[in-house]
Amino acid sequence: MSMTSRLPAALLDSPFMRACRREPTTYTPVWLMRQAGRYMESYRRMRARVSFLELCKTPALAAEVTVDAVERLGVDAAIIFADILLILEPMGMQLEFSAGDGPLLHNPLRTAADVERLQEVDAAESLSFVMQAIRATRAALAPNVPLIGFAGAPFTLASYMIEGGSSRQYTRTKQFMYTQPQVWHALMALLARNAAHYLNTQAAAGAQAVQLFDSWVGNLSPADYRTFVLPHSREVIVSTTPGVPVLHFGTGTNALLELMREAGGDVIGVDFRVELDNAWQRLGDVGIQGNLDPAVLVAERPYIRQRVREILRQADGRSGHVFNLGHGILPTTPVDNVRALVDDVHELSTREPS
Amino acid sequence: MSMTSRLPAALLDSPFMRACRREPTTYTPVWLMRQAGRYMESYRRMRARVSFLELCKTPALAAEVTVDAVERLGVDAAIIFADILLILEPMGMQLEFSAGDGPLLHNPLRTAADVERLQEVDAAESLSFVMQAIRATRAALAPNVPLIGFAGAPFTLASYMIEGGSSRQYTRTKQFMYTQPQVWHALMALLARNAAHYLNTQAAAGAQAVQLFDSWVGNLSPADYRTFVLPHSREVIVSTTPGVPVLHFGTGTNALLELMREAGGDVIGVDFRVELDNAWQRLGDVGIQGNLDPAVLVAERPYIRQRVREILRQADGRSGHVFNLGHGILPTTPVDNVRALVDDVHELSTREPS
Repeated sequence: MSMTSRLPAALLDSPFMRACRREPTTYTPVWLMRQAGRYMESYRRMRARVSFLELCKTPALAAEVTVDAVERLGVDAAIIFADILLILEPMGMQLEFSAGDGPLLHNPLRTAADVERLQEVDAAESLSFVMQAIRATRAALAPNVPLIGFAGAPFTLASYMIEGGSSRQYTRTKQFMYTQPQVWHALMALLARNAAHYLNTQAAAGAQAVQLFDSWVGNLSPADYRTFVLPHSREVIVSTTPGVPVLHFGTGTNALLELMREAGGDVIGVDFRVELDNAWQRLGDVGIQGNLDPAVLVAERPYIRQRVREILRQADGRSGHVFNLGHGILPTTPVDNVRALVDDVHELSTREPS
Repeated sequence: MSMTSRLPAALLDSPFMRACRREPTTYTPVWLMRQAGRYMESYRRMRARVSFLELCKTPALAAEVTVDAVERLGVDAAIIFADILLILEPMGMQLEFSAGDGPLLHNPLRTAADVERLQEVDAAESLSFVMQAIRATRAALAPNVPLIGFAGAPFTLASYMIEGGSSRQYTRTKQFMYTQPQVWHALMALLARNAAHYLNTQAAAGAQAVQLFDSWVGNLSPADYRTFVLPHSREVIVSTTPGVPVLHFGTGTNALLELMREAGGDVIGVDFRVELDNAWQRLGDVGIQGNLDPAVLVAERPYIRQRVREILRQADGRSGHVFNLGHGILPTTPVDNVRALVDDVHELSTREPS
């Protein structure tokens, strides 16, 4: 018996899960990356009391902000409140979320010995707070709202581990892959094993779908992606629990779409630099998630509606479209604009059941 | 009599100028963005004495670093030492190059009134130091080495003016274009007039070709490019002096290539996220400049040579290939690697004259 058939019908037949399987839906499902975040007043109140890491590590609070966002926005899926970098702590990295500089890794990887010291992660134990948050969220969510688990893809995690934080040009990461390819592949293989196991543990805890965030992979040439990334991302995706749809996301990936599809995923997530009709033409039979520019949400309501209409026109009623932003909601976004966006997507995409 | 035919034969028939006209060359010409820069010891010695802005504004010194780079590297073209933001000062912006934060504009644009206060620039007067540097460089350069002038494209300049400096997401810029489209277009039209006039003044002073740097335009969706950028970039390019080839450059532009070509340019400059064979297939009869990842130059010599070979294989001996990096040379690059790159390009591309 597959995982899918064990799901309650309310989840199994929800627009989001149907779209992940490329089945027709009565309207286009929508959720938004970083839908629980700083732009929301309730979130800011929460963060006035606890740090970002404390929030991630306190299951009741993580569940609260996850569910709160869904209820306030009316989106078609929840995504567990967590961070792609959490898994790096039990691997042996010293992680800090600093207020001004974003995430910092205080012991960046430089040598083969640094990589050899890294640990395999038992997610059920070392990331038990994520599993508890997933269980609490699943219990509190409306029974027809799927919950998405997630992990960082090997390349994106490796880039943080090597750069010691965010980067603009990924020079150290590329230097590492070009000059120490064997060490690079050992690191990527470890990250792939950990990510697959982490995603599967989340699915077992109650996530109905999982997203693999390869947020920064668009900084690579297609040749580099094929050589240094594709085998490892594929390894994650082929190792995920059957019946749990995988959303495979990156930004700036216009040149990489075919290769990302080759790596796998039921739904390929794209940002606003991709045109949906062009992407579908190139990718064929696969779901596509995206792709409103988050900056549009700081514009005015009629303009947002116009841009939603354009994206839906590009999607052209195809089965397998999950509406989303091209990247996370910006902190300066008015909440009312986000609610209006969700309503616009639902209203403008509603079609008669076939 | 056109500008072109007035050029001395040594320049007119140089590999770079021939490639700009898509004529066959005996080897592929190569130059490198930021070829005069921090990675070079002679440049660092110069900068120990004068600030970046002083260097730009002292024609003898700007000419010295420009010529020095060409002579040390053996590249096929010089590019005048200057900065795309210099034109913003006479337009009325308060420009500072801070050591840590990169360029800062202390009076960023917010309103229509801010845009109305901006000035038309008489480049011969307000940027006379650039013209003097071009004359001094032209006099000092070998007679067969073309000199490239340049300007920032309207979008990239507007983004600095609105953000007040560099940006990762260009949120304020996009908010400006989405919510104040008329003011945006007025700003872009002014920038286009100034850029065209600036480029033509440089050509008159002794630049044989010009590059329009739209470095950050790859952060826009194709639809945004078409609406908010294309008409203004086209206006710059159609207004340039006939016979002076225009190189039209951007990064992350895989989705924009056809539109950039529509905007114009004899040569389209692309970064490493584009595959040259794919780009030529899409663009047809136009020159292409690029596209080695600058990070490859911090790897080892045999690896660099391998990557050069791959790019030349993609270019497949087509006329109209100008070898370059996908973006500027990184400060940590060993000079010997850059010299080796230039030699590799020449050696691996040499063909019998047809």
